[in-house]
Amino acid sequence: MHATLAELYETSGVRFDDVCRVFDDELLSDLPFVNTLCEHVGRYRGKMLRPALVLLAGRACGELTRQHRVIAAVVEMVHMATLVHDDVLDEADVRRGLVALNRLQGNEAAVLFGDFLISHAFHLCSSIDSQYASRLIGSTTNTVCEGELMQIYHRGDLDLTEDEYMQIISRKTASLTSTCCVLGARYAGADPATIGRLEAYGLNLGIAFQIADDLLDLLGDEQEAGKTLGLDLKKRKLTLPLIHLLGRADADQRAAARRLLNLAEPDCLRRVRQLVAQAGSDEYSRGVARRHVEAALAAVSDLPPSAARDSLCALARFTVDRRQ
Amino acid sequence: MHATLAELYETSGVRFDDVCRVFDDELLSDLPFVNTLCEHVGRYRGKMLRPALVLLAGRACGELTRQHRVIAAVVEMVHMATLVHDDVLDEADVRRGLVALNRLQGNEAAVLFGDFLISHAFHLCSSIDSQYASRLIGSTTNTVCEGELMQIYHRGDLDLTEDEYMQIISRKTASLTSTCCVLGARYAGADPATIGRLEAYGLNLGIAFQIADDLLDLLGDEQEAGKTLGLDLKKRKLTLPLIHLLGRADADQRAAARRLLNLAEPDCLRRVRQLVAQAGSDEYSRGVARRHVEAALAAVSDLPPSAARDSLCALARFTVDRRQ
Repeated sequence: MHATLAELYETSGVRFDDVCRVFDDELLSDLPFVNTLCEHVGRYRGKMLRPALVLLAGRACGELTRQHRVIAAVVEMVHMATLVHDDVLDEADVRRGLVALNRLQGNEAAVLFGDFLISHAFHLCSSIDSQYASRLIGSTTNTVCEGELMQIYHRGDLDLTEDEYMQIISRKTASLTSTCCVLGARYAGADPATIGRLEAYGLNLGIAFQIADDLLDLLGDEQEAGKTLGLDLKKRKLTLPLIHLLGRADADQRAAARRLLNLAEPDCLRRVRQLVAQAGSDEYSRGVARRHVEAALAAVSDLPPSAARDSLCALARFTVDRRQ
Repeated sequence: MHATLAELYETSGVRFDDVCRVFDDELLSDLPFVNTLCEHVGRYRGKMLRPALVLLAGRACGELTRQHRVIAAVVEMVHMATLVHDDVLDEADVRRGLVALNRLQGNEAAVLFGDFLISHAFHLCSSIDSQYASRLIGSTTNTVCEGELMQIYHRGDLDLTEDEYMQIISRKTASLTSTCCVLGARYAGADPATIGRLEAYGLNLGIAFQIADDLLDLLGDEQEAGKTLGLDLKKRKLTLPLIHLLGRADADQRAAARRLLNLAEPDCLRRVRQLVAQAGSDEYSRGVARRHVEAALAAVSDLPPSAARDSLCALARFTVDRRQ
């Protein structure tokens, strides 16, 4: 795990042992080769952002319960399933410094194992007494899938607007981070207004997080990130810096960018990076991400002071400054 | 829909209008291209076997409720999701006489749309008051995924035993048909012994159905079936007639079969069909399927006489005699 994050979790007393136990117990199978797949994917565990949001939102609003641990495991399982299917779709080679499951076991096993994770996530969620979590998780994964489908639909669309991009990332990423915060707050007994604040926090954090992720894919260092980068360009997915470049840079830069993105030449990434830097599209994107971090901070500013609230703030700031 | 089936449903008064309405309402999106995908997949609706099992099991045990309609839509959605992902894995071209979604929109959209269907199935299921259906559907889809993973794991394994084959099809197919019957009975207020009978009926029907499906893939007529056939051989999945051929035919036939299956030559299907006929492996497999149909019939023989019970019996007999 990233040192800053580990420290942040340590300081706020967030521990994932129980969550990981619930996670592992749920996936345990009587089929040894299924357990091998689970162990491999278990090693993908990275930032634990989504479980952390459930636990921190819960603590910021009251006491943690067994239900928080179950929900934290559920959201991590949902996230893991999207990673496994994303890697199939992206034809990725590396995930968290490990061989991606699709490369190790083939696309078919990877699609099925993603399904297995989704199924277990819902099964685990249905062990909670009330239907509330199942309903919200279900409607959230509906939204996540729509966001992913919208992204595929707009692939290669050089006229994608910033508005459409924001819709895509709100659905595919921020809907889940927002739900993590809502469930954390709700199962700690928070009132509707407080739940609303946590929802806004999670939504803005998710948007900032995804913009940062997209910047990383375009400009990051593969070794440092521990995953295959440059995939958005390869898959002709427009992200915020490219939308800015195509829409707001000067005419020459725009024309050069359109040519490059249409051709998808081998050294495309290097040349796009130059154009992005020249047009200030990276700085523009970072600015948008920072504004969402500010909105996330503002949303939780009225909560009673606590170590958990401070950690939520630190987590929001971290999202835009990370390199992996 | 198959004429015999349509008549069977007609006779027993089973109607799917309400189920289809629940199904369509659940999937309705504010994104037009998502609705296009839904409409295409909506046309895959074929035998409606799983919703029929929910409704007939319910009627055989008592009165149908709104929950039966919801559950019927849920199981059809789960089934549809497995079809969409199966077609990606099988690289199929045709489904119910239509272009398969993976061919029409690409593998990526098909994987994501399968996820969208799974997600909506669980979301719809969570609209039922009690958690019982969500828990059982969740544990069933866990089992279905394990069956599919087990199948992939044993691909190309010419030493697959009949026992292992039965485990695979029990998990990937019969677990869901069994659950359909259990939920139908349970939400009609059946007692545990009656639920147990319906469970056994559904399990045996599912096994017989899958054996018949595998026979169809090996021996059927593609035009009549309305889907790509010969896929199991192409994907080196051993099914019951081949297991019989490899294990019980005379030494020459066995050696010829092993050679053929290892080589996967272009006219492999034609020659394997000849060997299967010579060794009586098709008749053997049909015999196994028929014994499971008998077991299904025996399981419901103690239920009070009703049109629904008669239809369950007719449905069980139909599974082994169909050509699509």
